[in-house]
Amino acid sequence: MKELELVRALTFDVFGTVVDWRGGVIREASALGRAKGLDADWSKFADLWRSLYQPAMSRVSSGELPWTKLDDLHRMNLMQVLDKFGIAGLSESEIEDLNHAWHRLDPWPDAIPGLNRLKRKFILVTLSNGNVALMVNMAKRAGLPWDAILGAEVAGHYKPQPQAYLRTAELLGIAPRECMMVAAHNRDLVAATSCGFHTAFVPRPAEHGPDQKTDLRPEAEYDVVAADFLDLAKKLGC
Amino acid sequence: MKELELVRALTFDVFGTVVDWRGGVIREASALGRAKGLDADWSKFADLWRSLYQPAMSRVSSGELPWTKLDDLHRMNLMQVLDKFGIAGLSESEIEDLNHAWHRLDPWPDAIPGLNRLKRKFILVTLSNGNVALMVNMAKRAGLPWDAILGAEVAGHYKPQPQAYLRTAELLGIAPRECMMVAAHNRDLVAATSCGFHTAFVPRPAEHGPDQKTDLRPEAEYDVVAADFLDLAKKLGC
Repeated sequence: MKELELVRALTFDVFGTVVDWRGGVIREASALGRAKGLDADWSKFADLWRSLYQPAMSRVSSGELPWTKLDDLHRMNLMQVLDKFGIAGLSESEIEDLNHAWHRLDPWPDAIPGLNRLKRKFILVTLSNGNVALMVNMAKRAGLPWDAILGAEVAGHYKPQPQAYLRTAELLGIAPRECMMVAAHNRDLVAATSCGFHTAFVPRPAEHGPDQKTDLRPEAEYDVVAADFLDLAKKLGC
Repeated sequence: MKELELVRALTFDVFGTVVDWRGGVIREASALGRAKGLDADWSKFADLWRSLYQPAMSRVSSGELPWTKLDDLHRMNLMQVLDKFGIAGLSESEIEDLNHAWHRLDPWPDAIPGLNRLKRKFILVTLSNGNVALMVNMAKRAGLPWDAILGAEVAGHYKPQPQAYLRTAELLGIAPRECMMVAAHNRDLVAATSCGFHTAFVPRPAEHGPDQKTDLRPEAEYDVVAADFLDLAKKLGC
């Protein structure tokens, strides 16, 4: 634990780690479906939409697309999903509202009590690929007690690019080793480790629904592995 | 009040408007003075240090200096002030700690209760020339309930440059007219007005000490003039 005493800020992945994006998108899409008399497998709808997330960010990171905030990538992807599902005739404001389903995701049950305990000892910061407006609106609705909203948009680089992590630490005025990345995703934590961050793995085995096969276990050495945010708080002495 | 119903975010000037920089710097400098057996007029020390603030930012805005965060401008200015006061022999860590006096400023007595009321209805955001680390550390120590830390460093431009205001609105995903700038300084509010922001003037007649002559009264048309943050909350229907 000696080295861990350096940690001053916890930087959080958000989608999947803090909030249940899949349950939220299914809830919002099926509500729109009911209102419009549309029938579809909304779980598959959510999964297809999410499956386009990484490829879209990769197009930005590769330079194929200029910087595009996540709300706009979500919107481009949504148009593809609606097309694949044969859903036509939604108004501009219905599409925009559905796109903002990502602003209205609910936290996992342990997230808020865990964050409130962690906040007494640490600076709590978002280090998400979600844009600032998305993160602010989500936090406001859900009551997430962030000390700052940083991450991809402010850094101008999507995770897992190193600039996303390094710029976040720099803006906090602290060294990477004074930060601990908290995520449910091995890829994120491995990238954070390469940048000199400490790491905490909090698996979310229901993130992708009942048949999840990925990120069930730590696939590298992390400083902490915790069952949920309350367990994380306990393991970090909060 | 019709037009004011558009407002979704309150963007705050911080030094002078939310916190008492002069009292805080006097407190921290005189504590160091006592510890080191130094005698000086610490009010004059604080006033001289602050007087170098605008000129230093102007050197960045004019392009004479590359982007330099406020902590670093404060440090350059502090070295000049120490020199003028003939104070020598401070260690590097004593100088750094004194420079971080700006991270440890206390809010005006109405600020926290007022912000807590305003937070129920509005997104509360810093739009300060202070850098992110300074704002985060100040908020954490004082309990300032910001929803996001934005402003000059994230925008890469110091107020009153329009980019500081416009980039803040853009990151929040809202139009300038959906923002209200809250400040104790006419210059800041006039610049925000030019960017299409709504405005609230909250005079802080003790900001510069007992002989303050500036910013005692509104010098332009603002949407709201409030005696303090509790009055602002009342006038905005919180």
